[in-house]
Amino acid sequence: MQMNPNKDTRLCISLSGRPGNFGLRFHNHLYGQLDLNYYYKAFSSQDLAGAITGIRALGIRGCGVSMPFKEACIALVDELDMSAKAIDSINTIVNTDGHLKAYNTDYIAIAQLLETHQVAKDTTFALRGSGGMAKAVASALRDGGYRNGLIVARNEASGTALAANCGYQWQPELGAQRPQMLINVTPVGMSGGAEADQLAFEAGAIDQASIIFDVVAIPSETPLIVRGRAQGKQVITGLEVIAIQAVEQFVLYTGVRPTPEQFQAAVEFARR
Amino acid sequence: MQMNPNKDTRLCISLSGRPGNFGLRFHNHLYGQLDLNYYYKAFSSQDLAGAITGIRALGIRGCGVSMPFKEACIALVDELDMSAKAIDSINTIVNTDGHLKAYNTDYIAIAQLLETHQVAKDTTFALRGSGGMAKAVASALRDGGYRNGLIVARNEASGTALAANCGYQWQPELGAQRPQMLINVTPVGMSGGAEADQLAFEAGAIDQASIIFDVVAIPSETPLIVRGRAQGKQVITGLEVIAIQAVEQFVLYTGVRPTPEQFQAAVEFARR
Repeated sequence: MQMNPNKDTRLCISLSGRPGNFGLRFHNHLYGQLDLNYYYKAFSSQDLAGAITGIRALGIRGCGVSMPFKEACIALVDELDMSAKAIDSINTIVNTDGHLKAYNTDYIAIAQLLETHQVAKDTTFALRGSGGMAKAVASALRDGGYRNGLIVARNEASGTALAANCGYQWQPELGAQRPQMLINVTPVGMSGGAEADQLAFEAGAIDQASIIFDVVAIPSETPLIVRGRAQGKQVITGLEVIAIQAVEQFVLYTGVRPTPEQFQAAVEFARR
Repeated sequence: MQMNPNKDTRLCISLSGRPGNFGLRFHNHLYGQLDLNYYYKAFSSQDLAGAITGIRALGIRGCGVSMPFKEACIALVDELDMSAKAIDSINTIVNTDGHLKAYNTDYIAIAQLLETHQVAKDTTFALRGSGGMAKAVASALRDGGYRNGLIVARNEASGTALAANCGYQWQPELGAQRPQMLINVTPVGMSGGAEADQLAFEAGAIDQASIIFDVVAIPSETPLIVRGRAQGKQVITGLEVIAIQAVEQFVLYTGVRPTPEQFQAAVEFARR
């Protein structure tokens, strides 16, 4: 946060059903570190269209969009970036003089993580989930050239649709499959949820996998990640996902990219 | 400004054609001093209705309204306080769970200043101006029981309407009148304006008055105030007006009244 706000301070916000603290702490910390005249504020709203009208009327620079607005937002913006077109789901709006362009930085973050973690293209994987975030993850895998995928989702309609869209198989349960990479994109393991202490995949499958990827960020040390880490497997956590998607938003809003050290310090600050 | 914003931080804003720094510095300073989890942001907007829609949708707690929105806002709120009803002009909106109630804290500030400066009820006065702020000042005088008033305004339509509404006389120019109190509610003497170095009343009238009241706040030491002060007259400045109207907004938004010392410190901070 810039410590001397004035009339030229720019506002960025988030809209979600249940706001958290990570994003606002991350962005405000970096504004302070980089001496950018911005302020970040988290909002919850029941009125998405009214909120978007307000973003235009007030000249709010950027807006992070979370559940349950990621798809409904599409009709309210002026332009979709490739990252959002790919999956019909957005999480970021950039307002340039009243023109609203929407992005999906979750998709961008997943694509980056597959690359930095050097996940081999021929890795077999199972992705559990079929919601908006699952679409972002599956699309990033598809566009990254990962062909050997299985969507595991109890919801047959959304599960088969997602699988068909990406050229993957679908099953309601993992069953006897033992893929090399397990990816959880459900709330299993999330703090405060009904399945907070559950493993997102069965123990036998986890023990035979070599890469564990969980998008749950609160906590990022889910039972799935803890078990994988204890066995010395390669793990990719939800904290990495929310941090990278947040820094990509930051770059879109400010035009400034923090150094890796500034980025890490902001992540450490924001997760406290 | 509260130094550790989180998801529960409340936002207050201002809407004006040309935002300044006084209000946001005043409010943010007091939030910090009183450890209130609020942040204040100044906005300019071309779309008043859209901005009010945004205030509702985002749950923005309060909004200061300046030129040119003080009258157009009335149709967009849910309820008018007595201070706004009296003059058909508002400068403050308080949002309580989506219900927007509008106030005029300029009117409240003028009424307070007449009292704290102990201006006698039978004082003869001339008020120059006939715009929205002139309505607030004239109405506060009328409701305070000041009967011997003259509205001086070149605009005959608005000048006579204001005079009739308050039971005062109207003249296009002061002429030979020599009232005890001179009140300027025009931009004469305002920094950046065409008449920044002008006296709002003719020198002869100033020299014979005993109270000089100027609502111009930037600078608050206008040529009119400087001349009155040099002659040892009682002066009431625009800085007093904007500071008192701002603290009344602060109380409406937060429910907390700063001490006189906290108030003075915030004024000193904000005017720097």
